[in-house]
Amino acid sequence: MELQKVLYMNGGDGEISYAKNSSLQREILGAARSVMKEALLDLYHAAGFPGMLTVADLGCSSGPNALTVVVDVVDTVEESCRQLDRSPPEFQLFLNDLPGNDFNSVFRSLEAFYVERDRRRDIRRCFIAGVPGSFHGRLFPCRSIHFFHSSTSLHWLSQVLSTIIVSISVPSKLQQHEVPLNKGSIYISDRSPPPVVHAYSTQFRKDFSDFLKCRSEEMVVGGRMVLTTTGRRALDPTRDEAHFYWDILSQLLMDMAEEGYIEEEKVDSFNLPYYAPSATELESEIQSEGSFSLKRLEIFEVPWEACQGHGDDDHGEPQHGFLPQKMTTRGQSMSNCLRAISESMLASHFGGDVLQDLFPRYSRVLEDRLSREKLTLPNIVVSLVRKP
Amino acid sequence: MELQKVLYMNGGDGEISYAKNSSLQREILGAARSVMKEALLDLYHAAGFPGMLTVADLGCSSGPNALTVVVDVVDTVEESCRQLDRSPPEFQLFLNDLPGNDFNSVFRSLEAFYVERDRRRDIRRCFIAGVPGSFHGRLFPCRSIHFFHSSTSLHWLSQVLSTIIVSISVPSKLQQHEVPLNKGSIYISDRSPPPVVHAYSTQFRKDFSDFLKCRSEEMVVGGRMVLTTTGRRALDPTRDEAHFYWDILSQLLMDMAEEGYIEEEKVDSFNLPYYAPSATELESEIQSEGSFSLKRLEIFEVPWEACQGHGDDDHGEPQHGFLPQKMTTRGQSMSNCLRAISESMLASHFGGDVLQDLFPRYSRVLEDRLSREKLTLPNIVVSLVRKP
Repeated sequence: MELQKVLYMNGGDGEISYAKNSSLQREILGAARSVMKEALLDLYHAAGFPGMLTVADLGCSSGPNALTVVVDVVDTVEESCRQLDRSPPEFQLFLNDLPGNDFNSVFRSLEAFYVERDRRRDIRRCFIAGVPGSFHGRLFPCRSIHFFHSSTSLHWLSQVLSTIIVSISVPSKLQQHEVPLNKGSIYISDRSPPPVVHAYSTQFRKDFSDFLKCRSEEMVVGGRMVLTTTGRRALDPTRDEAHFYWDILSQLLMDMAEEGYIEEEKVDSFNLPYYAPSATELESEIQSEGSFSLKRLEIFEVPWEACQGHGDDDHGEPQHGFLPQKMTTRGQSMSNCLRAISESMLASHFGGDVLQDLFPRYSRVLEDRLSREKLTLPNIVVSLVRKP
Repeated sequence: MELQKVLYMNGGDGEISYAKNSSLQREILGAARSVMKEALLDLYHAAGFPGMLTVADLGCSSGPNALTVVVDVVDTVEESCRQLDRSPPEFQLFLNDLPGNDFNSVFRSLEAFYVERDRRRDIRRCFIAGVPGSFHGRLFPCRSIHFFHSSTSLHWLSQVLSTIIVSISVPSKLQQHEVPLNKGSIYISDRSPPPVVHAYSTQFRKDFSDFLKCRSEEMVVGGRMVLTTTGRRALDPTRDEAHFYWDILSQLLMDMAEEGYIEEEKVDSFNLPYYAPSATELESEIQSEGSFSLKRLEIFEVPWEACQGHGDDDHGEPQHGFLPQKMTTRGQSMSNCLRAISESMLASHFGGDVLQDLFPRYSRVLEDRLSREKLTLPNIVVSLVRKP
């Protein structure tokens, strides 16, 4: 599976689109907004109010969240300029995601943004471009970006882990065997043996380190970066909070294998290219990569019920022309949310037909769980400064 | 008709896609290539070999031509660096088109480009971004672009002309009436009265002047710009060469109106937002806008038969993964080429059903005309320098 081709949020604006099932991610953006604003204004003031600010949002996705960050960035700086009685800068705003992302729908939603901005000022100050590519590699020229932002994206690994080399001692020599990484499970589970956890955390550390290295090359000295990622509170990655939702999906896939709908080998060979790091892991990798100093780290939780959107609490206003989703149960909403982000990979591995059966089961089990417990998703936000 | 929403080349890679019907435009790119290379190298050397070159292609479209310019730009500069034994610069390459353009297919075709480039060098030097928006307005921050390029795009006007105000003297006062601009025709024709020609040429001059003004703000001093546009040799815009293909389409639409398939008023109220300027018009507008000096102007013609593509002459190699079109008659190919660029607007005005009947008629008439005459499309290429 070539991950760059099959990892993307569901496009368009249908029932299972990311556009209609991303209110959890909007909640996360909202919770980290004050950290983002603080870093952005620090940067803008420390850089001596440059005439042009270059900002990139990595993993922008599509749908109503895609423009949230650029709107926040521009509003925050312009408001500060009003208070200081300064001319606002021009903004070069880059929206990045993998090439499979639905950039067409993002680009078509820009018109409303520009109309609104141009109405407020007689000259255009915001210039938006789309950048397709993996943030595990270079995306921008050297020293060209002032401010990087990324939300709910860094938990995606650069590759799918599928097998592991196991060494077995037999008389007189060491034999090496390639075996499925994680039998009967699609992510780290309570039963995962140490080599599984090691493979995942090693891949995450390598990916995060590559990410930091690339950004440090692309960034001006003194540039700022705010990253929000799904994470975990516990040090131990096998603890339930970090993966219960993937555990349930694993179990349902194994049920379907027992019922003969899919091959068990298919479940064994699939591992979500995903890792929910702990704060300690993030800190340690930032320190060892060495290009950035850590200004702030916060852990916060959002309730999984946020998948259902805000409805009237959100003033009933559709954002950027996207209508809110129709009424669903909490279980359906959580299932749709997880489907919108994982369908591209699951369909590519198991085939689309399997999903028609899988996700209704998933929503029933999630509904049952949500009726018994208040479930939350831990997130970690870090604010970094590019060292001189 | 909101032009920005309905003017786009046919997306995807189907039979009537721009991707499969743009070999004429590829021929034009090839014919103007030497002018582009000369301007680019002049710029790169005059600017003292900067570490980063920022280049924008305006009206990139989709399909195999979309990356042709960026490939040419990078190859030209890297070849020059090899000859001079210099390190090549980094390239920030912007692909611009209207928001309706199929950027998704362009972005998905980038992988092959990057794989090829990354194979040649161990570090990435080319960074490609997509910029949706109209080049009749601002697209980039001030002083941020070294080199602009545009091919077969500037003949598109910023708006559809549909009515004209006619003043009529009646005893004691002047009455003003709004009448359809161009009855029975979708573009300037041999029979067009002076007000029609005046309305088109005035709109073109305003659009081209706005274009020059925006680019002059976005460009570094000494920056270069190479523009290729469909044009005409004759000073008189009613001369046949500039519009015979739209004349035929007008006549077929009027035939269908007579047969009762469409309302005549629909034909009267539709005018292609298109203008083929003369060299004199371009020169005069460049001079009066004043930001650029004209280094070179050339007129060249490409045969309409180039619509059929190169087949084996082109080494049978599909470009950027797009397969060449299947065998068609010359009339069909020319009809498909004109359909791929105008379908979005025609369908929006007349409805999609009309086109199913219209274009087979069009290809038969064009086939007849091509069998009797060698028909060519005049183009004008200008090379400009941003004045200090």
